[in-house]
Amino acid sequence: MKAELINPFLSSTLNVLTTMCKVKPIAGTPRLKQGSSTWGAVTGIIGMASDKLSGNMVISFDEPSILALVSNMLSEKFVELNPEIVDAVGELTNMISGGAKNQLSELGYNFSMATPIMITGQGVSITQLSKAPVIQIPFEMPEGKFVIEANLAESKKS
Amino acid sequence: MKAELINPFLSSTLNVLTTMCKVKPIAGTPRLKQGSSTWGAVTGIIGMASDKLSGNMVISFDEPSILALVSNMLSEKFVELNPEIVDAVGELTNMISGGAKNQLSELGYNFSMATPIMITGQGVSITQLSKAPVIQIPFEMPEGKFVIEANLAESKKS
Repeated sequence: MKAELINPFLSSTLNVLTTMCKVKPIAGTPRLKQGSSTWGAVTGIIGMASDKLSGNMVISFDEPSILALVSNMLSEKFVELNPEIVDAVGELTNMISGGAKNQLSELGYNFSMATPIMITGQGVSITQLSKAPVIQIPFEMPEGKFVIEANLAESKKS
Repeated sequence: MKAELINPFLSSTLNVLTTMCKVKPIAGTPRLKQGSSTWGAVTGIIGMASDKLSGNMVISFDEPSILALVSNMLSEKFVELNPEIVDAVGELTNMISGGAKNQLSELGYNFSMATPIMITGQGVSITQLSKAPVIQIPFEMPEGKFVIEANLAESKKS
């Protein structure tokens, strides 16, 4: 996956979380994902498809980070994971992938987006059927950590 | 979700499994999915997106059914879940959703497909961020059971 395809996910994440959640996470260096499990306590997945490339974006939050982000976003103090938090992860997945989609279209890739699926639980085995390696971008805030994962590969013709 | 949108998933499932796995599963009556957990031992998910509708197709197999299907498909006896089985679930997810996509295009819905993600484990919490209810079609064979789940709703504009 080319670097030009990774940057839209990185900058959209920062845009959305700064605007919606009033935080400024610090992005670490993108790396290859090791293993095939959910990284954090709540994970959003969204399928992305274009004529040229297809794949998935995955965002996975540790519990402290998502409680802080959703508390800020909804102006209400959340202290434990509940269905409202899980839905908020889906909304954030939509917004971040939508922002990345817009930036990717400027590079000539016109993606359509599926709808988010959220997985609750850390270490759930999720395997991607794709020859492309999964790129993982780690983020840190004082409140907690999260990762964005993306793999986009040439679309399979069917 | 209209019945005309469900039939392509049903008939593509029967086509693919008859051709690839030499079995003739019997489809039960489509129903609303209850709860939000993976139904079977291995589950394939693929995002589907078009200008008008978007969503996900999910296929979830109990262990006896997927061992029988993959043993037939690959002409090799499998007795336990392993990475080869998980990849085969991804391939079946691709083929079945690809067949449904072709039938949906005849109805005027031109879907692009993301790439499959496979979840291992029964009862994993998977929630869909969609106003559309999830339709579940149960299938039975002498060897075991599986379900297809689909939810397609109006695409969100971003």
